[in-house]
Amino acid sequence: MQLHDHERIDQLYAEDIQIIQSSEVFSFSLDAVLLANFPKIPKRGVIVDLCAGNGAVGLFVSRKTDAQIYQVELQEKLADMAQRSIELNHLEEQMTVFQIDLKDSLAHITHNSVDLLLCNPPYFKDVPTGIKNPNPHLAIARHELHTNLDEVLEMSSRLLKTNGRMALVHRPDRFLDILNTMQKYRLAPKRVQFVYPKEGKEANILLVEAIKDGKTDGFKVAPPIITYDEKGEYTPIFRQMLYGE
Amino acid sequence: MQLHDHERIDQLYAEDIQIIQSSEVFSFSLDAVLLANFPKIPKRGVIVDLCAGNGAVGLFVSRKTDAQIYQVELQEKLADMAQRSIELNHLEEQMTVFQIDLKDSLAHITHNSVDLLLCNPPYFKDVPTGIKNPNPHLAIARHELHTNLDEVLEMSSRLLKTNGRMALVHRPDRFLDILNTMQKYRLAPKRVQFVYPKEGKEANILLVEAIKDGKTDGFKVAPPIITYDEKGEYTPIFRQMLYGE
Repeated sequence: MQLHDHERIDQLYAEDIQIIQSSEVFSFSLDAVLLANFPKIPKRGVIVDLCAGNGAVGLFVSRKTDAQIYQVELQEKLADMAQRSIELNHLEEQMTVFQIDLKDSLAHITHNSVDLLLCNPPYFKDVPTGIKNPNPHLAIARHELHTNLDEVLEMSSRLLKTNGRMALVHRPDRFLDILNTMQKYRLAPKRVQFVYPKEGKEANILLVEAIKDGKTDGFKVAPPIITYDEKGEYTPIFRQMLYGE
Repeated sequence: MQLHDHERIDQLYAEDIQIIQSSEVFSFSLDAVLLANFPKIPKRGVIVDLCAGNGAVGLFVSRKTDAQIYQVELQEKLADMAQRSIELNHLEEQMTVFQIDLKDSLAHITHNSVDLLLCNPPYFKDVPTGIKNPNPHLAIARHELHTNLDEVLEMSSRLLKTNGRMALVHRPDRFLDILNTMQKYRLAPKRVQFVYPKEGKEANILLVEAIKDGKTDGFKVAPPIITYDEKGEYTPIFRQMLYGE
């Protein structure tokens, strides 16, 4: 496997997956690990990883399913890393990367066909005065420069089959916006889980699951995830996700 | 102080408040304690306790403010208990009970005048097949027989001044309904807190704070409250609310 400058191979021990990371371009974050562990993964059918980055989420769930996994990523360098990680793990039969704008997804993935859609989108609104990451790869991944929440949820709804599920990781301050926009696109929010950095702190990560054309009653709030204990070490639930121990 | 059959006087130690309870009619629940501890309490102005029951929430916040506190309760026996608890604590100058249907609140409380509105409403939808409490006092307090979420939030909005706050305790399965109906009545949800019975369990109580005519951005998820520890005893945060220790 050829590695480019600044690239390295990391291991996700819990899933026995190797992944190409880059200090200069992009490395997956804890958000990807949380997202991959949040929804129930269908055993077969079609799974889409939208805003796939270097492919972490799709790679992490691949061990739990025989479903076809399609990864959609706009940025060429990230999509290339994702493709090489697929080869590194010998997952070419199961996984496909589309290096495209997500708005063009329907040219590659049949509408109303997807069983589970996972998405770790850019979190931050593109406000003219906002401070963006000087690294253009990270700026695109983190700020709504090339897409936004509305576009992501509209495309998710078009891709999903009826009763198909979407799982999204995002920031709590966008929570209302997320719930309102999901409902605008026939995605019924069903379950949330909040991640708190420490006991006694406000949540800093939000996970939401929605069902296309589902009912809006019976909303559930999953058990809290607390990332660090009082000594600043990962909590057992978090170690389990990262290391499988 | 005259007590009726089955009545007793309980003490909320954290606030040094005595409250008349009844095993036959109504006793306040932990939800009232959680609600009273959730929002920032204004030092003066007008506070309304809607669906006041035996008056627990208003009594608990009375120690933290010089604001006038109006309590609205439909049921005669509960309003009477609330009135006698006010006398028991010598709070007649600060607190007033209106034994009325909440839909008639504007005959007693000026519209657009309230700084903080607290509400512990009936939680359960009135479905014809639903099992209701055989005790009619509890059935009315817990099921949407005489009012419902839409009416409660509409009246809350009419009572509140611009930038006035409402704090609501409810069940997580009604969360979407709550957020959507708040926004329908110009109440911008700003902060939620989830209460989990134990670590690793789904939330069973929801606290929501909204601002009338507020902005919908900057949503916050307050630190989790876990009620019981692994030994089945109240956690320190909960003991603090109940006993002030």
